[in-house]
Amino acid sequence: MWPPFRWLSELFLSSRPSRLTTILDLLVPFKHRQTILYYDDAFPGLFAATGLSLIGYWVTSMAIAKTKDVFFARGFKGRDLLKNKPEPIPESLGLPTAAVYMALLFLFTPFRYFSSRLQGVVKTGDDWEGRMDGRGGFPHHELASFLSAQLSFLSAIVLGFLDDVFDIRWRYKLPIPIISSIPLLMVYYAGGGGTSVVVPGWPGFLRQWIGSSILELGPLYYLYMSLLSTFCTNSINILAGINGVEVGQALVISISLCINDLLYLDSRAGMAGSRSSKELLRRHLLSLYLLLPLTGVCMALLSWNRYPARVFVGDTFCYFAGMVFSTVGILGHFSKTVLLFFVPQIFNFVLSCPQLFGLVPNPRHRVPRFHAESKCLYPSIQYFGSGNAAEDEKLPNTSLKALRPASMLSTIVLKLLSAVRLVQLDYYDEPKRRIKSTTNLTILNAILVFRGVRHLPSAKAGQTPFTGPHITEYGLWVHTMIIQIAGSCLAFAIRYWVASVVFP
Amino acid sequence: MWPPFRWLSELFLSSRPSRLTTILDLLVPFKHRQTILYYDDAFPGLFAATGLSLIGYWVTSMAIAKTKDVFFARGFKGRDLLKNKPEPIPESLGLPTAAVYMALLFLFTPFRYFSSRLQGVVKTGDDWEGRMDGRGGFPHHELASFLSAQLSFLSAIVLGFLDDVFDIRWRYKLPIPIISSIPLLMVYYAGGGGTSVVVPGWPGFLRQWIGSSILELGPLYYLYMSLLSTFCTNSINILAGINGVEVGQALVISISLCINDLLYLDSRAGMAGSRSSKELLRRHLLSLYLLLPLTGVCMALLSWNRYPARVFVGDTFCYFAGMVFSTVGILGHFSKTVLLFFVPQIFNFVLSCPQLFGLVPNPRHRVPRFHAESKCLYPSIQYFGSGNAAEDEKLPNTSLKALRPASMLSTIVLKLLSAVRLVQLDYYDEPKRRIKSTTNLTILNAILVFRGVRHLPSAKAGQTPFTGPHITEYGLWVHTMIIQIAGSCLAFAIRYWVASVVFP
Repeated sequence: MWPPFRWLSELFLSSRPSRLTTILDLLVPFKHRQTILYYDDAFPGLFAATGLSLIGYWVTSMAIAKTKDVFFARGFKGRDLLKNKPEPIPESLGLPTAAVYMALLFLFTPFRYFSSRLQGVVKTGDDWEGRMDGRGGFPHHELASFLSAQLSFLSAIVLGFLDDVFDIRWRYKLPIPIISSIPLLMVYYAGGGGTSVVVPGWPGFLRQWIGSSILELGPLYYLYMSLLSTFCTNSINILAGINGVEVGQALVISISLCINDLLYLDSRAGMAGSRSSKELLRRHLLSLYLLLPLTGVCMALLSWNRYPARVFVGDTFCYFAGMVFSTVGILGHFSKTVLLFFVPQIFNFVLSCPQLFGLVPNPRHRVPRFHAESKCLYPSIQYFGSGNAAEDEKLPNTSLKALRPASMLSTIVLKLLSAVRLVQLDYYDEPKRRIKSTTNLTILNAILVFRGVRHLPSAKAGQTPFTGPHITEYGLWVHTMIIQIAGSCLAFAIRYWVASVVFP
Repeated sequence: MWPPFRWLSELFLSSRPSRLTTILDLLVPFKHRQTILYYDDAFPGLFAATGLSLIGYWVTSMAIAKTKDVFFARGFKGRDLLKNKPEPIPESLGLPTAAVYMALLFLFTPFRYFSSRLQGVVKTGDDWEGRMDGRGGFPHHELASFLSAQLSFLSAIVLGFLDDVFDIRWRYKLPIPIISSIPLLMVYYAGGGGTSVVVPGWPGFLRQWIGSSILELGPLYYLYMSLLSTFCTNSINILAGINGVEVGQALVISISLCINDLLYLDSRAGMAGSRSSKELLRRHLLSLYLLLPLTGVCMALLSWNRYPARVFVGDTFCYFAGMVFSTVGILGHFSKTVLLFFVPQIFNFVLSCPQLFGLVPNPRHRVPRFHAESKCLYPSIQYFGSGNAAEDEKLPNTSLKALRPASMLSTIVLKLLSAVRLVQLDYYDEPKRRIKSTTNLTILNAILVFRGVRHLPSAKAGQTPFTGPHITEYGLWVHTMIIQIAGSCLAFAIRYWVASVVFP
């Protein structure tokens, strides 16, 4: 082994006596040294991943500082619509972030897999055989998992950046994550991944009806995993629009998944566990190898993208972060748990459905509007037609040409949403039959409506165009983060408390 | 298994009785059927790879036709300097080519690895174990190799496209392929890859001097492989400048490597060979899985990029194609053979060294010049200073500011090159001491000089600025392709004839 590699791998991983012991002698009080060596032995590579995530924070900050002007000069820039300043700021800075992340994973590889301990034995004549056919302790399957994860991340980065450059159409964008999830599914298959789900034991008739406590989904399960990639990559992308919200949600999900992994790090399993408990440990370790560096680079990106944003993240970041989460779920065999942490994104997606599927007109931008004097946000609205073209022309410019009146179905859906204070409706007529306008169906507008901010469409120039509490962009970001964190708490409750009730 | 998947995998791969037999019944005369089934059994996945390369040709042509206007509209365009037409044409069309190639590899994965035969046995209780730990015949290591190859290709594509968008500086560009080769080297290591070279047996003193017939290079061998990636990605990029030359050389190398792989396809090894002969077969099959689709997509790209070019390929293609070759060499354990097929590129690199390392002034473009009236090419030249600034200002515009006179070393090197007719020199004085100009040091200019085309720096406006044979851009392309093909023939001769003499 090449000396610097050996030195570095011993530093983080090695069998004793090693440099790690030397470093511990210098830095750590005697009584803790054995503990650290014990955990290093039980969880190989975890110290290296932690170290790399700290380095990742620092390198990402530096990379963004160095590249933002280049991006700006090449036309990757946009105006921040929710500020008084007219100057554009650099865009697509998710790309250097993702590049640093990929470099970290590449550099991590030898720390995990290029270690004398993993060969199982000292070099002997059958060393070649040992590495080749799975004997001698080389984790070929785990290496394949790790590589397939990197492959799917890189595909997502390419797709995201191409979307930033070319604005790819939806019909081309949707199938790409499905194709790029094939290697991942192949590795899942090679790892003997299960394709069955446990049928809830409560209510009791479900199991009776299905006739078994386990439902074998077979190829449908692969389809589900493949769609999970598409969902995760796009759901972060549509919950966007205010400073720091894309990175913030990714960071909360990433930290939540890390905590979930930590719950499985049972050192006894690593040292002397059964085959299946070792396998469980290994999967959650793999998940941590991928998520810890992500947490590091996201923190750095957030420090640039948080209110007031100095850079925008671009589609690159949303696709990339979403792909990391779905990949971790698939390879870690806990894809359903991952979905639990996406509750706010799922809520936002479901709320958006009437607009995505054409029940309500869908403009290009649905972010809340900015009131320059008070620097506060209020919900953006979308008009319906009145059925009278001449009257429609008097409506404020809505960027959409032909306005249709609200259909029966739209009216019912919107009235239901209005009843739970997720949208604010205005009417053409007094008995409130024909809807004139609705706030746009996103979680950001819904938060404002729920807090009581009311858009006043009839406000004259000079008047404040909204009533209710004054919520700034930063305030709305805090609201969103609180919802995301609450969603994570809910997810933990469902996963570890409700699940034990429903799946006895 | 999901029915369409099963159907497709049976179509190309399966154990009999299968759809393949049905198709053969319909299409192939009886006496050939058993032969096809036999080869299908001996070389799993080869039929699928061949089919996908045909599909690749068709899809790439279509993808280029559909995306070229989008590239053009987004500013990816350039003028063809060697034509009379002033209109720019779209650039960076290597990107859709590479994207189609990656999609083909992704789609190929299940054909090779998702087959009932590879599980070794019919599904039983220990099926999970079978796939998981290398027993039951699942080729985990080969899957890891395949994934690491795709990972390095995708890294090269990202790097190439970023270079097209941002014009990355050399000092950042060079280390990136080294970092992105880490997963590849890891897999090479996991596959028990050798790090020793055989010392030539002739001349005899070499082995005596080293003291062994095998030289263990250890980590230096990894360094060599990592630099191979950098060399291959950049060497195709610097042999560029005329229509079709980047794709043409890649196509010749790709076909040559395919032929080299075919020499190892011994069906007896696949059916009942020893462990090591099966391993050799498997490596060359893997190489074919990667090279056959490349050949397909390159042919399609060439049909768009050949003289007169309708699109340019961009750095993306050069990086991507170079990475495929180096990866195939590393994973197939024949990296030294790959280098043999790069003889023209190595020659071009060595010839360029005086300009790359500052002995001769290095302008941004070194392509031959175009004579609009005759539509022919003649060598481009580079001036040296005369030592007199006032006199230097009378020289034609050379895009470089301060011109230094030729140093002693430059003069010696250039005179040597001139003696073998690779450059054309002009002098300030009669005894031919102070060099006034030299043709640029690229293989394209060298071909023109060697064929006797002479640049006339003193030609007045209206006069033909060169003498000698009339070689058009297409003619120069043919010359380059002949050299590349001759290089491949030489490589085969060295590999299979000289090698047997030198390594007895």
